[in-house]
Amino acid sequence: MRTLKLTIAYDGTRYVGWQRQDNGVSIQQLIEEALAPFMPGRPLPAVTGASRTDAGVHALGQVASVRVAIDHPLDAIQRALNIRLPGDIRILGVDEAPPGFHARIDAGGKRYRYRVAVAPVVLPMHRWFVWHVPARLDIEAMRAAAAPLVGAHDFAAFQATGSSVVDTRRVVRRLDIAVAGDELHVEVEGDGFLRHMVRIMAGSLVDVGLGSRRPEWLAVALAGRDRRAAGRTAPACGLVLEHVFYPPDPPAPSPGNSC
Amino acid sequence: MRTLKLTIAYDGTRYVGWQRQDNGVSIQQLIEEALAPFMPGRPLPAVTGASRTDAGVHALGQVASVRVAIDHPLDAIQRALNIRLPGDIRILGVDEAPPGFHARIDAGGKRYRYRVAVAPVVLPMHRWFVWHVPARLDIEAMRAAAAPLVGAHDFAAFQATGSSVVDTRRVVRRLDIAVAGDELHVEVEGDGFLRHMVRIMAGSLVDVGLGSRRPEWLAVALAGRDRRAAGRTAPACGLVLEHVFYPPDPPAPSPGNSC
Repeated sequence: MRTLKLTIAYDGTRYVGWQRQDNGVSIQQLIEEALAPFMPGRPLPAVTGASRTDAGVHALGQVASVRVAIDHPLDAIQRALNIRLPGDIRILGVDEAPPGFHARIDAGGKRYRYRVAVAPVVLPMHRWFVWHVPARLDIEAMRAAAAPLVGAHDFAAFQATGSSVVDTRRVVRRLDIAVAGDELHVEVEGDGFLRHMVRIMAGSLVDVGLGSRRPEWLAVALAGRDRRAAGRTAPACGLVLEHVFYPPDPPAPSPGNSC
Repeated sequence: MRTLKLTIAYDGTRYVGWQRQDNGVSIQQLIEEALAPFMPGRPLPAVTGASRTDAGVHALGQVASVRVAIDHPLDAIQRALNIRLPGDIRILGVDEAPPGFHARIDAGGKRYRYRVAVAPVVLPMHRWFVWHVPARLDIEAMRAAAAPLVGAHDFAAFQATGSSVVDTRRVVRRLDIAVAGDELHVEVEGDGFLRHMVRIMAGSLVDVGLGSRRPEWLAVALAGRDRRAAGRTAPACGLVLEHVFYPPDPPAPSPGNSC
């Protein structure tokens, strides 16, 4: 058996999310099925993703691990997977991984981007990849609100209600608001993320940008550890998983927001 | 009656093209239908586009003219159209035009971009907007082949067979090959274009880039004025209409390729 590391991009619009579910088609399931022809007579291999992205969330650098009984060269596996997968899921790379490599457990960090389109009209080409908030957002207020979230905190206030995760402490290494043409991007990097954490951060920061909340509010919400204290969950379509870090591939040090 | 100038972006993937046709839904038709509620009891207004883009071709700056019996402010018309139109067609602007303005006849020029993706894998987000040619293209050979096409020429060799256009002379003001990340872009600007002209240019230039034709070949094909002498027609999905010029909005002078 070999262990493979897959690097994957997808347009999540059509899917119930990364993870297999009974109510629709998942990205995980399609990749497992695309591996099946390599292993006739064997059960489907279990493909484990670093991040369980929600329905409608996209990826440019999802990473998954899988143990397979396949002898083919890596580039032949990549080509065969891409031929079998639909065009909204692409295998960007197939690498040999050490035995026991686990894409989620071994991940040292992740970087997400949340795209907010602030112009009156969203270009057709971007319509599945942004949250449309046609308003003048106060960027400096958003940056002030974001600053206290950087560092090691209990992010219970930024977790979807109903989650079963017990230890809600996480380290946010970087949380920047960047201007990109007609869009504002919330760029966040951390050791790990709770369910909906980035989307609740983005939704709360937009509330501040719109002036419906004051910048100080988010630090108070964080300290309260209660989901009801934070802001709304931004829609899935604006979110993209950009990169998963594995040692010795540390996140780039961020001079402005180091913790 | 007022004459309006509409500036329009669209993802052409789902449509039979700009122009109304019996075999499917066109962009022109949907815009005419979206104007109808403004003019109850009147026949559908005729919306005339500057360019009759083919099925699958996109636009970032299509321009159309229409005469309407509508008294509403311009921004109210824009908002009402965008609410009624699907997200893959967006009205970017509605302007008052002088009586008699005709988007096609009055156009002084157009700029198109043809996107060729040369990496082994196309990102899901780009899949409807590029032609995938996973190969190392010889850019200098493509530039050498493109140079003789700039200027005033008879482009009969670069017109779709079966076209009824008699005067096939056109002026190409600029024809550049630009590198954009993992893509090569054919950027072309001219006073007007024959049916499939940009796609035949892009297909022929890729033939040169692949080394299956020599750079000198295109000048010979141009002089021969025979469609069979030029190269293949590149697929529609890579093409986007970027801008339509109207006096006094002249094309930017291009230092390298002025004619």
